[in-house]
Amino acid sequence: MTTDSWINETLYAEWGQRFLVKRELARVQSAFQDIVIFESVSHGRVMVLDGVIQITERDEFVYQEMLTHVPLLAHGAADNVLIIGAGDGGVLRRVLQHRGVKRAVMVEIDGEVVRLAKQFLPEIGGDAWNDPRGEVIVGDGIDYVKRAPDAAFDAIIVDSTDPIGVGEVLFTDDFYANCARILTTRGLVVNQCGVPFMQAGELRETSARRAKFFPHVTAYVAAVPTYVGGFMTLGWAAKDTSLTLASASEIRTRAQSAGILGTTRYWTPEIHVGAFNLPPYIAQQLPTLASGV
Amino acid sequence: MTTDSWINETLYAEWGQRFLVKRELARVQSAFQDIVIFESVSHGRVMVLDGVIQITERDEFVYQEMLTHVPLLAHGAADNVLIIGAGDGGVLRRVLQHRGVKRAVMVEIDGEVVRLAKQFLPEIGGDAWNDPRGEVIVGDGIDYVKRAPDAAFDAIIVDSTDPIGVGEVLFTDDFYANCARILTTRGLVVNQCGVPFMQAGELRETSARRAKFFPHVTAYVAAVPTYVGGFMTLGWAAKDTSLTLASASEIRTRAQSAGILGTTRYWTPEIHVGAFNLPPYIAQQLPTLASGV
Repeated sequence: MTTDSWINETLYAEWGQRFLVKRELARVQSAFQDIVIFESVSHGRVMVLDGVIQITERDEFVYQEMLTHVPLLAHGAADNVLIIGAGDGGVLRRVLQHRGVKRAVMVEIDGEVVRLAKQFLPEIGGDAWNDPRGEVIVGDGIDYVKRAPDAAFDAIIVDSTDPIGVGEVLFTDDFYANCARILTTRGLVVNQCGVPFMQAGELRETSARRAKFFPHVTAYVAAVPTYVGGFMTLGWAAKDTSLTLASASEIRTRAQSAGILGTTRYWTPEIHVGAFNLPPYIAQQLPTLASGV
Repeated sequence: MTTDSWINETLYAEWGQRFLVKRELARVQSAFQDIVIFESVSHGRVMVLDGVIQITERDEFVYQEMLTHVPLLAHGAADNVLIIGAGDGGVLRRVLQHRGVKRAVMVEIDGEVVRLAKQFLPEIGGDAWNDPRGEVIVGDGIDYVKRAPDAAFDAIIVDSTDPIGVGEVLFTDDFYANCARILTTRGLVVNQCGVPFMQAGELRETSARRAKFFPHVTAYVAAVPTYVGGFMTLGWAAKDTSLTLASASEIRTRAQSAGILGTTRYWTPEIHVGAFNLPPYIAQQLPTLASGV
């Protein structure tokens, strides 16, 4: 096997993961980023943006389930959901699994990601692309939240790249201020905050920023196999501080009625509740939360 | 930077992590395995056995805390502890942190691992090497448990390599039968069971084996940054089915009196309790446990 058969992730200059490539399926320079999709030997198909692994067919369930089911079931009655990014369609699919969701708007800046995901990763979005409750907009998420009416959404899910390159503007004061404005009174926003063992600043800085606009800022964790480096954190900013207090049994009841129970491979009601218990090395990055010890 | 500066983990043939090497400190072929210790750019010093990352200075706390504090605090009164493997001294150090521990016997088959760890990774074992409560034996763990008297230990911690190469014999019926025999009536054994997303068979097979000799077999999880691939599982086999039922508040009380509270960077009482809630993709590898959903 020649070294040409491997793709090295370039997220960190000094450490990272590599994949043995079966064949490359697409390599496109879009207006926003360098997009590569390849068939790996170990993880099915893999999408890479600017050298950073975004999704693999084999482990996408971990990230998608935790990024979607936790906020929607913590809210308990989310009718209108806004998704920023997530061009592969995986979050849209999980959001539309919830029976109660009436409308899911997905705003992805890079139409090429959507096009290539539909072509090469069709199972990740699945039927969601054609669900009449879903609306897929190729456009700027920043601009969308600026122009959206007040209290239009119950939950906002930000599935962006890291705050470098195209994703950077999603981690600003303006963005979070508008998120707060367009959310209903029990509304919340979640966003991926990277892997704090390697990227502690990402969680620390975005948490401090969200705390300016939301009374309850915290994070929860998920162990995503190909976001290597220990727990990834998902940032949490809510208007209602009680959303994280539901018991596992209450979450189970909501999941049952939403049609989610039994469909998951990572998420469970107990994992949902437990994911807010942060290791001290992560908790110390948050502005207000004690370490828990 | 030439490719010669990178060390690729060879645990999986088709996917894995790589480290940029600052300098190599030792490369020894012992009677049992190939041992490499290097200074990484990202993770401090790293020990590699037969091509598999065993420990890094920067993230060892996750694995050691979870492998040690969970069984000892779940037991609540472990006087005598047996450690198999763990030649770097990190588990020994965490065990001896517990005030109540009267005796910790560590049996490591490869004296070269101990010698090199003392020389190049001195902070991992720290003062534990000289603690009069500790006894370090260079010898065969299989043989040790065969010859040890009945009911000699309250807890056995198996910190071995994967069940390939030198570690393979630690995952046999004979070994677990002897573990059960030399444990006290509330005794338990924990062992590393790999990363089930990549190595599902390891958890499945050792769990089935342990279930022949222990009434309570389960597993708990830890997100160890350099055991890449999502949650690692730590196998649990106990004579007393109630050990996993202690509340976080009871565990907190025990940790306080053991001198552990406030010393940890990953472990907390809540994480201790929550670690037994397994994602369905992991739970399905266990012989008796339902998925939790």
